[in-house]
Amino acid sequence: MAKCTTRVFLLSFTIAMVLLNGCMGQGRARENECQIDRLTALEPSNRIQAEGGLTEVWDCQDQQFRCSGVTVIRRTIERNGLLLPSFTSGPELIYIEQGNGISGLMIPGCPETFESLSTQEAWREGMERGMRGGRFQGQGQGQGQGRQGRFQDQHQKIRHLRQGDIFAMPAGVAHWAYNNGDEPLVAVILIDTSNHANQLDKDVPRRFYLAGNPEQEHEQQQGRHHQRREFQEQGQQQQHHQRRGGESRRGGRQSDSGNVFSGFDTRTLAQSFGVSEEIAQRLQAEQDERGNIVLVQEGLHVVKPPSRSYEEREERSRGSRSRYGSMNGLEETICSARLSENIDRPSEADVYSPEAGRLTTLNSFNLPILSFLRLSAEKGVLYRNAIMAPHYNLNAHSIIYGVRGRARIQIVNAQGNSVFDDELRQGQIVVVPQNFAVIKQATEEGFEWVSFKTCENALFQTLAGRTSAIRAMPVEVISNIYQISREQAHRLKFSRSETTLFRPENQGYQRREIAA
Amino acid sequence: MAKCTTRVFLLSFTIAMVLLNGCMGQGRARENECQIDRLTALEPSNRIQAEGGLTEVWDCQDQQFRCSGVTVIRRTIERNGLLLPSFTSGPELIYIEQGNGISGLMIPGCPETFESLSTQEAWREGMERGMRGGRFQGQGQGQGQGRQGRFQDQHQKIRHLRQGDIFAMPAGVAHWAYNNGDEPLVAVILIDTSNHANQLDKDVPRRFYLAGNPEQEHEQQQGRHHQRREFQEQGQQQQHHQRRGGESRRGGRQSDSGNVFSGFDTRTLAQSFGVSEEIAQRLQAEQDERGNIVLVQEGLHVVKPPSRSYEEREERSRGSRSRYGSMNGLEETICSARLSENIDRPSEADVYSPEAGRLTTLNSFNLPILSFLRLSAEKGVLYRNAIMAPHYNLNAHSIIYGVRGRARIQIVNAQGNSVFDDELRQGQIVVVPQNFAVIKQATEEGFEWVSFKTCENALFQTLAGRTSAIRAMPVEVISNIYQISREQAHRLKFSRSETTLFRPENQGYQRREIAA
Amino acid sequence: MAKCTTRVFLLSFTIAMVLLNGCMGQGRARENECQIDRLTALEPSNRIQAEGGLTEVWDCQDQQFRCSGVTVIRRTIERNGLLLPSFTSGPELIYIEQGNGISGLMIPGCPETFESLSTQEAWREGMERGMRGGRFQGQGQGQGQGRQGRFQDQHQKIRHLRQGDIFAMPAGVAHWAYNNGDEPLVAVILIDTSNHANQLDKDVPRRFYLAGNPEQEHEQQQGRHHQRREFQEQGQQQQHHQRRGGESRRGGRQSDSGNVFSGFDTRTLAQSFGVSEEIAQRLQAEQDERGNIVLVQEGLHVVKPPSRSYEEREERSRGSRSRYGSMNGLEETICSARLSENIDRPSEADVYSPEAGRLTTLNSFNLPILSFLRLSAEKGVLYRNAIMAPHYNLNAHSIIYGVRGRARIQIVNAQGNSVFDDELRQGQIVVVPQNFAVIKQATEEGFEWVSFKTCENALFQTLAGRTSAIRAMPVEVISNIYQISREQAHRLKFSRSETTLFRPENQGYQRREIAA
Repeated sequence: MAKCTTRVFLLSFTIAMVLLNGCMGQGRARENECQIDRLTALEPSNRIQAEGGLTEVWDCQDQQFRCSGVTVIRRTIERNGLLLPSFTSGPELIYIEQGNGISGLMIPGCPETFESLSTQEAWREGMERGMRGGRFQGQGQGQGQGRQGRFQDQHQKIRHLRQGDIFAMPAGVAHWAYNNGDEPLVAVILIDTSNHANQLDKDVPRRFYLAGNPEQEHEQQQGRHHQRREFQEQGQQQQHHQRRGGESRRGGRQSDSGNVFSGFDTRTLAQSFGVSEEIAQRLQAEQDERGNIVLVQEGLHVVKPPSRSYEEREERSRGSRSRYGSMNGLEETICSARLSENIDRPSEADVYSPEAGRLTTLNSFNLPILSFLRLSAEKGVLYRNAIMAPHYNLNAHSIIYGVRGRARIQIVNAQGNSVFDDELRQGQIVVVPQNFAVIKQATEEGFEWVSFKTCENALFQTLAGRTSAIRAMPVEVISNIYQISREQAHRLKFSRSETTLFRPENQGYQRREIAA
Repeated sequence: MAKCTTRVFLLSFTIAMVLLNGCMGQGRARENECQIDRLTALEPSNRIQAEGGLTEVWDCQDQQFRCSGVTVIRRTIERNGLLLPSFTSGPELIYIEQGNGISGLMIPGCPETFESLSTQEAWREGMERGMRGGRFQGQGQGQGQGRQGRFQDQHQKIRHLRQGDIFAMPAGVAHWAYNNGDEPLVAVILIDTSNHANQLDKDVPRRFYLAGNPEQEHEQQQGRHHQRREFQEQGQQQQHHQRRGGESRRGGRQSDSGNVFSGFDTRTLAQSFGVSEEIAQRLQAEQDERGNIVLVQEGLHVVKPPSRSYEEREERSRGSRSRYGSMNGLEETICSARLSENIDRPSEADVYSPEAGRLTTLNSFNLPILSFLRLSAEKGVLYRNAIMAPHYNLNAHSIIYGVRGRARIQIVNAQGNSVFDDELRQGQIVVVPQNFAVIKQATEEGFEWVSFKTCENALFQTLAGRTSAIRAMPVEVISNIYQISREQAHRLKFSRSETTLFRPENQGYQRREIAA
Repeated sequence: MAKCTTRVFLLSFTIAMVLLNGCMGQGRARENECQIDRLTALEPSNRIQAEGGLTEVWDCQDQQFRCSGVTVIRRTIERNGLLLPSFTSGPELIYIEQGNGISGLMIPGCPETFESLSTQEAWREGMERGMRGGRFQGQGQGQGQGRQGRFQDQHQKIRHLRQGDIFAMPAGVAHWAYNNGDEPLVAVILIDTSNHANQLDKDVPRRFYLAGNPEQEHEQQQGRHHQRREFQEQGQQQQHHQRRGGESRRGGRQSDSGNVFSGFDTRTLAQSFGVSEEIAQRLQAEQDERGNIVLVQEGLHVVKPPSRSYEEREERSRGSRSRYGSMNGLEETICSARLSENIDRPSEADVYSPEAGRLTTLNSFNLPILSFLRLSAEKGVLYRNAIMAPHYNLNAHSIIYGVRGRARIQIVNAQGNSVFDDELRQGQIVVVPQNFAVIKQATEEGFEWVSFKTCENALFQTLAGRTSAIRAMPVEVISNIYQISREQAHRLKFSRSETTLFRPENQGYQRREIAA
């Protein structure tokens, strides 16, 4: 009994403490990567055009990204564009900047719970059979072609992508995406290569495609990078070896594009799938010139629930039961876990000021999967000339992406030097390293941004305002450390009654509130 | 109440999520270690012969091992051979390839629960006294020699080693092993130097002996390694300093062999143990030329339970109470924790096909101590010409050791290039890095292997078969990404109704099943 | 039900296992940092004198510190000295070697629970208002000046610092300290730069000041370090850029001293705080020449509870409720968490011998916050000529600081070589790397030390004595591995009946105990 109490205590203590020490085992910055003297607002350095869209890549060798241990890309998927299925060795955090789409994940161990026949009746019929007789797999080939020439299908859950969504993609989980909307689907994607989940090189983002013949997004940069170090490496790795001849399809193939099937022997692949070598060659896609985003001419028709909003919300509150009841215990967890949340809705704001703007946080408390990605996000809106209080991130780097408008951002390092004092515009990125102090002030246009943070419960400490570090100190301490009178110290401590977002003409506002 | 529910939810969520994100804080590969162009099947590069057996060492500087952050050795302990007690700074996973033996661990804080007198009566008598009067320690010296010249003894639990066992050895826990069988005891040992438990250099396996005078197993390699980098290091470390003269036993001793006692002053050591300097010198073992495995001429007689099988299984199901009831709460946990499991028994297979073979997985769910080692293992058997489905490891490197027969193994990297397409034979190792795709196909002889994995719950995603990534995608997506007809996509998706292990003549087999 | 049981089992198992594998995800030593041939007793290499005290810095580039991934400083705060508020990117463990003081932490999200008016009545009145009407913030400025010219104040909890305290300071939490005693306040501070909480460079200790203009404590060393590597870095980072002119206060400022406010634009800062630019300039403290410890001429008067001892102890046992009941759930946890414990009190010793000395351990079981810092500490006292048993740390480095007297310390590496055999005196440091064997023997003066350990539950295994590794082995094994008779093996195993601390004249003592 006493033991059990101790355990419960330790558990609750653990959960509570996570607030302050939520980040575990990040092997981030290497030596001197964060000795930052000067930052610049970064735009993508590389563009990869495909049939159905565009991928823009930020230079992962830039010191900002090396310090924070992440890399960022932006994808624009055109109408009817289909992003080929792929996965990365580190988790991804995806912000849907614009548009609508759908996505399918391939999670090992999860059942195929989405099913379709060609007519409504058939679908209902299939459902009934499914509930009586278990799953459909054995019926595959023959039957599918037999009955009235229709194609019955089953696959894993389809998820919606909407403007303003943050989508959490676990490392190693393959996924595809499709733009079924009327405008380009634009996504800003952070890949956390320093994540505990990535056991490959921590500074090289790597994407594994399951189809097509796309070039590596970070190839060029890897090349450069490689060259810089190759004198060190030559002793260790034998370079550009030829594959063994004869038995393999491609003699000496060492191309920089391909998918996970490309390097296999075609005959073995055909045997593995139980298909002809012609189809196996299509898997290897040597002739595919479409790139990583392809166009689906007639549009993609997959079974999916009519709309998110109502049902999905209800499902969440019910604890997300799967359609078939309990199969193996697994589908109650990751298979149906919530992986996304909209961060743009004003109604969900955590900090809101009608005069200054709003701030919405997405962390492991409102999207639990983030515990396992060890990442979180923040969406901010500053109205014209408004200020976000000077603050520092206790336990995370903050990767700021400008979504709309412009702001003057000031960043200060440990030595008290300004390392950034510049405008950040839509489509630009700047990294605020852990513990560096920062002030954001919107221009006349206002400013909107999304920040990716390298901790599942990133905390910041404000330096001005009602919940700031200054408020936590006794007036006598403030007076002594800043060499000001106690009256001045009192003013410094109590002037700002707002917490995080300040309207610019503070004096007037301040006076008004005091009068009220 | 509401809080408590949240906690329980979070806890269950945590456990569930572990399935997908089980690996925490691995600081594995350094820069570019996993930029792999070409792998080769590796055999041991170094042999160390001792009186009672042989240690074979794989080159820990090979890129495969540097990428995976582990090192591997194989020990052959002859009949009556005794491996001197030692520990390593990273945890070990030990596969008993052949033979039988016993092992004793020295776990701090655990009671000595195995006791012996020289006759059965005496033993029983001792037991009774032990239960009445507490522990024996105070009686040591005088008494042991007194009563009838017999030596009563007590020591920590003795554990059995059987062919097919995987033994999990926590970092820093000293242990000895003894071959009490009739054939050589062969063990393949993975040392996880990149493990969180190792706070010393992550790429240098280090073994600390408690006895003897054995040379460091990785010494030569460290030497080479050291040389390559010494120009960088010279500023920082003073090399080959002389010990202070006079007060110490060995002036300027800087040998590469020795045990943890060798470097102490003999007199201090004698004082510490309360023994003569002659015995203290035996601890330091300067003259011992037997190496790390010694022969026990007349055989080693230690008290141990008659057999594993029945009793131990029962003990497990009961939750492993210790003999003396509850002493300090500790002996219920690590002291009596199950540290090994047999992975060879066909009856325990997780995947089984009478035509293709079987697969057995050992992870933190069936051997909980693996949570803390952050390692797991898999044993596989492929019958003649059978195929293990193309797949990739989501969250772990896989270090494959050939146990019997031969297989053609194909490994493909992120760029779609083949990095390995070769046979792996008995006694050879190849590393499949995280996320790299792999196919195994047995030769005419069949193939048997053990894989060590750098995650306590290593997951793999198959790319063909009933639970594969392809099955998770809608037919329409498959058709579009591989540029094949919907009929072909349907065939690609549903042809293989098996999950992981395929018999080679798939068409016939397939047809048979469909007919059935 | 069954599931729930499993969960509880897993949880209790987890807590139990922590004993052996408590250290998670430490990315400590880099390559070859721990290939140690020779250690030396280290004294501070750098002194920084400030108005109110002295900071002494150990060379963080020394191999001992690079191997253990920590850095150490010692502060001497004079009477009425106030250490300016600062925080570090890694957690700190602080040992109060001498004196008394108070400290205030600024923890984000914690309420200001300490309140004061200028008279007792006013204070009581304020309390009542506080409990009726919520918090005070809105009343700030105007009211404070209005009512009878008194300054009401509120701030976060004030904590006491007493000789012998170990204080656990989480990463990123700003704090100040003040010497309100009659003698200098001396603190030895370990900063764990390799900690998971630090996402900045793992080998560069960085302190961020919230006030004043202090030079970086490790600046000089960073400089040296930087120079050694700059040829590698030049390609990546642009050095010594000028700040943009015009709009900023200090053109081209790249000083090595300053606080987090120094680099901001003064006008923006004034706007953020809602104060005049004159006060904002005081925050930036460009003219402040007092250094990091300033003198408070008339003494600092802040509201604080009368004394620790009774109340605080009671608060602990009650589970530390906050004064205002439950506000946001947070103040029950980190806000009122116990952050310090006295480690000097003989009554709290874990190992005690009237002849040899005592040992007190502080780990996550008696100070739970240490789980999150992943650090622990040990205080030891050895009487004249007494010995601490040869032992090794299983899962941590041990950073030993001499508090009083002198001892001969012997340290042995994996190859069995002596890497340290020298005296350690008061004020000196030596690092015992993980798994290295060590013996301490006090001189005639006796010896007192504090050890910081890089694991929240650092375990050591003794090699001699009643709970040692030798005791865990069967006599037959001991006899064979050390090539001694069974009688000798028995003596080696049972001679020492003490556990960890041995009196020097062991034979006599031993005989006495046996006779008793």
